[in-house]
Amino acid sequence: MDDIHLELEPATAERFAPYGDLIHAPDRVTAAMNDGRFDRFGDLARIDIDGSLAVGIVRSRTATTLPYRVDRVERHPLGSQAFVPLARFAFAVVVAPIGEAVAAEDLRAFWIAPGYGVNYLRGIWHMPLIALQDHQEFLVIDRGGPEPNCEEWLLSESVMLLDSRGT
Amino acid sequence: MDDIHLELEPATAERFAPYGDLIHAPDRVTAAMNDGRFDRFGDLARIDIDGSLAVGIVRSRTATTLPYRVDRVERHPLGSQAFVPLARFAFAVVVAPIGEAVAAEDLRAFWIAPGYGVNYLRGIWHMPLIALQDHQEFLVIDRGGPEPNCEEWLLSESVMLLDSRGT
Repeated sequence: MDDIHLELEPATAERFAPYGDLIHAPDRVTAAMNDGRFDRFGDLARIDIDGSLAVGIVRSRTATTLPYRVDRVERHPLGSQAFVPLARFAFAVVVAPIGEAVAAEDLRAFWIAPGYGVNYLRGIWHMPLIALQDHQEFLVIDRGGPEPNCEEWLLSESVMLLDSRGT
Repeated sequence: MDDIHLELEPATAERFAPYGDLIHAPDRVTAAMNDGRFDRFGDLARIDIDGSLAVGIVRSRTATTLPYRVDRVERHPLGSQAFVPLARFAFAVVVAPIGEAVAAEDLRAFWIAPGYGVNYLRGIWHMPLIALQDHQEFLVIDRGGPEPNCEEWLLSESVMLLDSRGT
């Protein structure tokens, strides 16, 4: 079976909106707080949790190199899920719309620039997180608790995420 | 009036527990996820929000230098409030226990090392955020919505936060 090639496109708020939010402080100045010592950028993510919310950290053990074979996607029926890098590094995500099945042509791949995090909407299919370097940390804001909250879809096609780096 | 001197002590999870949580991924390995590509450290903060939760970013406009006069503390009756640095930098916090009044002897100052965030419990008094450098970004997880959720207490004593840097 020939590989289906998936090109990374640069993430913008508009392109990513059907799948979730880019969590980012823009360069423009908005509301000041604390006697003008800070700029505040409020409410950057559509957090949507059915049940208890958990804040955790994940740290990569290994670097995942591109090109990378995407063999599955997952979704979380009980809540949105945010990943915010705890340092300035880029990462790559693959998403597909809400639905009962996923075909290769449903997939889109986004290059997330340094200084940006993502929040997947509840039910959005996404590639399990990969990191391009080891020891990269992400803050995770998602649904806690013991109830099952992760469903996987194994892709029937052979999909290769290319090293196009959003160019 | 003589200044009351407030010394920074290094934050540890145990010392900080009455006031909130330190958000940090320890060096030890815990649960793996995503085929062993990541370590996961779950549920690091006692998020306690009455109403809607908001995820935002604040960015310092200016550096606040130590020693620094602490003239007030604030509290949020409707929810906990977390600040997680989006790069590896240290910061300083001042806290006081839940209560209707705050005296200088109630205050404790903590030096938060690089790689650590904090989550203040609901109702914990704390100094409004300061940053030791400009352009430092923190992710903020707190209570959103228009309802008033910030109460200030003006200290009657003159309190000076010293440049002791947790040593």
